[in-house]
Amino acid sequence: MTQYVYTFGEGTAEGRGAQKNLLGGKGANLAEMARIGLPVPAGFTISTDGCVYYMKHGDYPEGMEQEVEAALAKTEKLMGMKYGDPENPLLVSCRSGARKSMPGMMETVLNVGLTTKTIPGLIEKTGNERFVWDAYRRLIQMFADVVMEKAEGIEPDEGEEIRAQLDNIMDEIKEQKGYEGDTDFSADDLKELSEKFKKKIKEVLGSEFPDDPKEQLWQAIGAVFKSWNGKRAVSYRRIEGIPDEWGTACNVQSMVFGNMGDTSATGVAFTRNPATGENKFYGEWLPNAQGEDVVAGIRTPNPLNMDTKSEQNKHLPSLEEAMPDTYKEIVDVRNKLEAHYQDMQDIEFTIQENKLYMLQTRVGKRTGMAALNMAMDMLAENLIDEKLAVTRVSADQLNEMLHPLVDPEAEKKATPIAEGLPAGPGGAFGQIVFTSDDAVKWYREGKHVILVREETNPEDVEGMRAAEAILTARGGMTSHAALVARGWGKCCIVGAGNLKIDLQQRTVSTNGKTFKEGDVFTLNGTKGYVYEGELAMIDATENPRLKDFMAIVDRYRKLKVRTNAETAEDVKLAKEFGAEGIGLYRTEHMFYGKGSEKPLFLLRKMILSVNEDERRAALDELFPHVKDDIKETLEILDDRPVTIRLLDPPLHEFVPHSEENQKRLAEALNIDVATVIKRSNALRESNPMMGHRGVRVGITYPEIAEAQIRAILQAAAELIKAGKKPRPEIMIPVTCDVKELDIMKQIVDQVYEDVVQAAGIDKIDYDFGTMIEIPRAAMLSDQMAQTAQFFSFGTNDLTQMTFGFSRDDMVTFMNEYLDRSILPRDPFQTLDMESIAPMIEDSVKKGRTTRPDLKVGICGEHGGDGPSVKFCHRAGFDYVSCSPYRLPIARLAAAQAAVEEEN
Amino acid sequence: MTQYVYTFGEGTAEGRGAQKNLLGGKGANLAEMARIGLPVPAGFTISTDGCVYYMKHGDYPEGMEQEVEAALAKTEKLMGMKYGDPENPLLVSCRSGARKSMPGMMETVLNVGLTTKTIPGLIEKTGNERFVWDAYRRLIQMFADVVMEKAEGIEPDEGEEIRAQLDNIMDEIKEQKGYEGDTDFSADDLKELSEKFKKKIKEVLGSEFPDDPKEQLWQAIGAVFKSWNGKRAVSYRRIEGIPDEWGTACNVQSMVFGNMGDTSATGVAFTRNPATGENKFYGEWLPNAQGEDVVAGIRTPNPLNMDTKSEQNKHLPSLEEAMPDTYKEIVDVRNKLEAHYQDMQDIEFTIQENKLYMLQTRVGKRTGMAALNMAMDMLAENLIDEKLAVTRVSADQLNEMLHPLVDPEAEKKATPIAEGLPAGPGGAFGQIVFTSDDAVKWYREGKHVILVREETNPEDVEGMRAAEAILTARGGMTSHAALVARGWGKCCIVGAGNLKIDLQQRTVSTNGKTFKEGDVFTLNGTKGYVYEGELAMIDATENPRLKDFMAIVDRYRKLKVRTNAETAEDVKLAKEFGAEGIGLYRTEHMFYGKGSEKPLFLLRKMILSVNEDERRAALDELFPHVKDDIKETLEILDDRPVTIRLLDPPLHEFVPHSEENQKRLAEALNIDVATVIKRSNALRESNPMMGHRGVRVGITYPEIAEAQIRAILQAAAELIKAGKKPRPEIMIPVTCDVKELDIMKQIVDQVYEDVVQAAGIDKIDYDFGTMIEIPRAAMLSDQMAQTAQFFSFGTNDLTQMTFGFSRDDMVTFMNEYLDRSILPRDPFQTLDMESIAPMIEDSVKKGRTTRPDLKVGICGEHGGDGPSVKFCHRAGFDYVSCSPYRLPIARLAAAQAAVEEEN
Repeated sequence: MTQYVYTFGEGTAEGRGAQKNLLGGKGANLAEMARIGLPVPAGFTISTDGCVYYMKHGDYPEGMEQEVEAALAKTEKLMGMKYGDPENPLLVSCRSGARKSMPGMMETVLNVGLTTKTIPGLIEKTGNERFVWDAYRRLIQMFADVVMEKAEGIEPDEGEEIRAQLDNIMDEIKEQKGYEGDTDFSADDLKELSEKFKKKIKEVLGSEFPDDPKEQLWQAIGAVFKSWNGKRAVSYRRIEGIPDEWGTACNVQSMVFGNMGDTSATGVAFTRNPATGENKFYGEWLPNAQGEDVVAGIRTPNPLNMDTKSEQNKHLPSLEEAMPDTYKEIVDVRNKLEAHYQDMQDIEFTIQENKLYMLQTRVGKRTGMAALNMAMDMLAENLIDEKLAVTRVSADQLNEMLHPLVDPEAEKKATPIAEGLPAGPGGAFGQIVFTSDDAVKWYREGKHVILVREETNPEDVEGMRAAEAILTARGGMTSHAALVARGWGKCCIVGAGNLKIDLQQRTVSTNGKTFKEGDVFTLNGTKGYVYEGELAMIDATENPRLKDFMAIVDRYRKLKVRTNAETAEDVKLAKEFGAEGIGLYRTEHMFYGKGSEKPLFLLRKMILSVNEDERRAALDELFPHVKDDIKETLEILDDRPVTIRLLDPPLHEFVPHSEENQKRLAEALNIDVATVIKRSNALRESNPMMGHRGVRVGITYPEIAEAQIRAILQAAAELIKAGKKPRPEIMIPVTCDVKELDIMKQIVDQVYEDVVQAAGIDKIDYDFGTMIEIPRAAMLSDQMAQTAQFFSFGTNDLTQMTFGFSRDDMVTFMNEYLDRSILPRDPFQTLDMESIAPMIEDSVKKGRTTRPDLKVGICGEHGGDGPSVKFCHRAGFDYVSCSPYRLPIARLAAAQAAVEEEN
Repeated sequence: MTQYVYTFGEGTAEGRGAQKNLLGGKGANLAEMARIGLPVPAGFTISTDGCVYYMKHGDYPEGMEQEVEAALAKTEKLMGMKYGDPENPLLVSCRSGARKSMPGMMETVLNVGLTTKTIPGLIEKTGNERFVWDAYRRLIQMFADVVMEKAEGIEPDEGEEIRAQLDNIMDEIKEQKGYEGDTDFSADDLKELSEKFKKKIKEVLGSEFPDDPKEQLWQAIGAVFKSWNGKRAVSYRRIEGIPDEWGTACNVQSMVFGNMGDTSATGVAFTRNPATGENKFYGEWLPNAQGEDVVAGIRTPNPLNMDTKSEQNKHLPSLEEAMPDTYKEIVDVRNKLEAHYQDMQDIEFTIQENKLYMLQTRVGKRTGMAALNMAMDMLAENLIDEKLAVTRVSADQLNEMLHPLVDPEAEKKATPIAEGLPAGPGGAFGQIVFTSDDAVKWYREGKHVILVREETNPEDVEGMRAAEAILTARGGMTSHAALVARGWGKCCIVGAGNLKIDLQQRTVSTNGKTFKEGDVFTLNGTKGYVYEGELAMIDATENPRLKDFMAIVDRYRKLKVRTNAETAEDVKLAKEFGAEGIGLYRTEHMFYGKGSEKPLFLLRKMILSVNEDERRAALDELFPHVKDDIKETLEILDDRPVTIRLLDPPLHEFVPHSEENQKRLAEALNIDVATVIKRSNALRESNPMMGHRGVRVGITYPEIAEAQIRAILQAAAELIKAGKKPRPEIMIPVTCDVKELDIMKQIVDQVYEDVVQAAGIDKIDYDFGTMIEIPRAAMLSDQMAQTAQFFSFGTNDLTQMTFGFSRDDMVTFMNEYLDRSILPRDPFQTLDMESIAPMIEDSVKKGRTTRPDLKVGICGEHGGDGPSVKFCHRAGFDYVSCSPYRLPIARLAAAQAAVEEEN
């Protein structure tokens, strides 16, 4: 016969921690705690099978009722109390608990077993009449709310109504007596309330609140099972993809009370310090109190032990001092838990009349720094092995450590003056300036500055580099400011819409307050908050343990990591952060920032040419700049691969906006300014993201593609002659058909012949490949791989087009989409596992059927996102590429994916 | 033993027309012609198997050489001539011919068998020394070019060179003698040339031009086989997706000559009139001439018969008169061909010394009108059945008949003054005007006007309606002008970039010529050409046979057809064209065009509201307009379905641009103009196509969605109370996740309860569904179908996002993509069969696994494109929807798909 009921308590349990499917998460945990000898209040779990049967047949399976009776008897014996007994009454809780946690979605009933007959006994035992009557009125309320509204014949409307009516009764008494909160109720008030509640229930629902303990128990069990099909639970399952047929378990457990006088107490603790990771037992407790009192913060909790004493609580007695024997028991529990779970635990305990009960244990939350320290300590303690250590720091926790941060303590006390999109991570403070030139000037004077702009454009890049952080009033997550800042790992907030910038007056206003040039702001770029004045900062990157940890990480990683970088500075930084090559070198970078004036001017000249001759002439002038720039990067990387992407943005992005630049260009092209403006306007597009860009420019103006290809190959040839081993990879962006690649490959082949012959060298080792960033290219990857030797997934654009979300424009609705759970997360941060991930997986497979040794990477920003990197590992990628500052995260995620795969 | 060689000739053949895989298209056709008793010059086909073997082994398979010898002997016998015989020499041609036609991609060698020994005999026979020497020098050239350059040990470079050098020799002689063309060469010149060619070949290639006829034959056969792997052929196969392993057949056929004196002749004919379809034998011929002379147009060809006589050629003798016996033979052939092929044939014949030879027969090209007439005639003649008749008019041919057209004869003589994108079909002429108001004014004065604008916007709609045609200097195929015009089936050309419009002066200039208001233009909107002055027009829609034909078509069609329409006028037109419902009613239409002033103003007021209260107030004002508009359409359609799409475009599209409208709006909103402009600008997006539009507006402002939904349901409720049976289908655009649909459905459910209760009716029959126009929605269609009862594929946007092509911007590169065959056709015209079609097919399948009775349609412009409609049939769609003027095409394509499926 199927067993439906599993008992636990006093160091023994019929179930195990692994039986989550059968006992639910909570039930399995309780069983596991009991099994390893922890003093868990006795009780039993009715299995999910019982629920499934009940859902199907509307009744309990045969034998289950007898099993419950037997388990209850066993529980009574273990606890030394009797359910329903007037003298020594046992109370129980009935809680739901599914295979997967569904927090707050299902029902709980506490204090089950409290009846007119058992109340006097409990008052006698606790000496606390108010507590007992409060427990009673809570039981009645929960019953009305949870149990009775689910009873046969009760309409959902009536359920709604009874809840509201009981609340009304409480409000009335509060008003009558001038009480401010529930805590003002006296024992008599609560007794009166209970009577009124019972009367109202009878009146509205037509049935009595049960005064029979068994009836209470069975109604509560039924209510827990039924709550699996409650409205909230169903819609939660829908969102989380949890199958309806799992069902919930029902945990019936003895209630214990920490408020039974001075030999009772309650507390919470972490087995190690969750803020620092220090290997010290850390916790708080309160004598003669219930669990919620510790968390509520009305009384300052006492320190658990000497180690936990602080300025705030050092005058209060520790548990170590007050109850030394029980404290020793808890320390023992702590050691057992860490040995068993091999991780820091967050525990709740209650001491009832000198007897310790463990109510809960779970893996404790911790800061990034604590996670790192614990992992390294536990490794040193031989508590865990390297593989486990690798999984103990999450990508988010690592990210915390990689940037200077606004001190959370300081931030708690401050109020943001503005809010924008968190475009560049970390924190920074500085004096605000309003132009790029001022930023540079002030920077040279040794000042910390924050560049505040309406939006930025390529002409601002010098100022952006000089600034500690960038703040813009407009623009989205792919605006110029956001892209540049993120590339540099620089703190940046964009689209802070309520900033009103007055460039003439050099002021910025927000919420009626005006700040002038030189005022100090602090920015939290990780959250998008702007503060007035200087807030304290913390920096965790110096920690040598981080280096040790990353060395372990790299031992388990299989994916290669590369970086998206162009300048010597960034490349050097990336190498320090572990880059094994460049996965995205954007040819256009040289038209932004330092030293870009001349090349940008030549590019503009080229763009505004009206015929091929003019264009070729401008390209010839531009050529040495492009070649030298590429050569420098190839040389630094030497024998590591460098993926060089041909010109990607629409040409209109480069045309001059300032009058001066328009004039200069007009002179150079020997045309008037009006013509410059006209030609610029002619390049304007309605949807530039899907316009004349990438390979499309190379198809219509092959000479532009040719010049770039020649620059790459000639740079490589010159290095080869100098004894270097350059490894360029020529990457074609925005492709949607293999024929585009074929046309580009023909140009490459021609140029290659020329260059190799002219240089008098044997060969240049290069690869030819493509971005996969257009859905059609992803779909037709088997064809793309006929010509491409490598794919680099451009997941930013792929996400834009697959969702039809323009990243620059979606600020207007994306928050709503996330708040309302229409999407589980921002698909530009983490690859959408429902659409983009399967598309990529399929694409890789198809590409490799054509070309088994196809090299596959990713160069969208997802390349630096933990879950996305893990996906890349699973999908068989060769490498991921991301901005230098995200490299450690990519390395960590890659290693975790490899370790997870083995399990 | 495998048979490699298949003979044909004199009414008998070893092969058959169905054996295209074995004999190639040409070989199979020759066999079929011979088999049905046509006088085909005898010869034989070496099968593709022979080629495949040769490609693989570099040698002919065993027995093939003997087979060729035997076949040649049989050919000699049938022709009464001998290959290589000095007196009575047989010459042959060697032609390639693959399973699928690869025009011009492989090689042909003519006059094979002409040697120093056979030349005198042929001169003797033909009495035409010049002809023979010309044939000889052509043979040498073709040999050098085709055969010898493929010989062992010859580098491709040498092949290139010999070709150039032979050309040089010809040019030198021409220059020496002052000749203008090849026809000036005398017999002696050609003889001299042949000698020089042979010398040069020896010099460059190091081997003699073969003077042995057998050697010539085998080298020519080898060259034809080798040309299968020639560069052109390989890249053509790549583009067309033809497998490399098919191979080509080699057709060796007796040469016949129409230039052997007055008993010889050559001609071409159609079995019926290809221009009108009239059942009259129609053709041209020339005595003592070769085939190319007829086509070259140097001599005016004679009419074939009395029926073919025209003004130009009535003085010339017909074949019927000149060679009555042979003419009768040809008439006999004509009858045999039509009976056999059941279609009009385009034939080539040669008469050699009174003997008729059929060189080719193929299905003849024809005009739309001719196609219709032939189909209906052949049906009446019982030559074909209804199903075949349905397939005999193509979508393009039908389209030709649906719009007034510029008379092609008139167009031939005129030169376009400007060229743009063919945005609206058909032709029109009229006086040019430059403003919408003028267009209306002139129209009211009874004038035909053409509205010429830089671009159009919603404020121009009245003028656009008044105009015969619209011409814009800017904008692409989805610009406002293009969309509106196409919806109306109105002639329209957009993006005619070289038009310079001077609105002040009311002039437009192009190529240095200036036209003023009132000048007459003619537009060919099907091709995008603009002409000066009035060109003659033709109109074919009046043909009663078209109605008869469409009635037959509808008998075989299984797909339903609906229309994209909103106004009463369009809906009426659509019903005439066969619409069975509305597949796309765009809510926003009421903000364009006649009577739109008030609603547009209210919409603007709503859009520029800053909070929900303001927005709701504006919506309340707008509500009756929306409701009445929808009600009118639902009433006209009565019990036929009307799919009503909620607001789709980004809101910025509606904000006012003119100062006056901005001022009016400012007053109404009680704010200043600057604020109106600021709020308008705040709505501007970088990529509006992927911005805040469609359902995203409904998610962020649920009150906007609610107002529209209420309008639909209330309109329906009012009609139900009036005894009608409205069938509204509520369609949500721009969705990418089922949760968006869930949220919209909740609103629908709430509103439905309200409306039904308030109206006191039982129920409203409505469906709730979604556009599938975002790739992610297509991918996750199984989820979408949980809530959607119908899908309507929005293939315009789906194509935009899958290709990453902004339709408005792609004009800059799309022509290049089509010209260079990067894409086989414009994917916005015909669904891309490589990406979009499989995506949709998969999407439909997945949707129907969730909801087997899911209703599926298409409402993108592809719904009126022949191949796309056929795809929809195959993919199991329920209906297609298109603009009224495309309905006949959709009906035809649907019927053809159904007929094709049966075959």
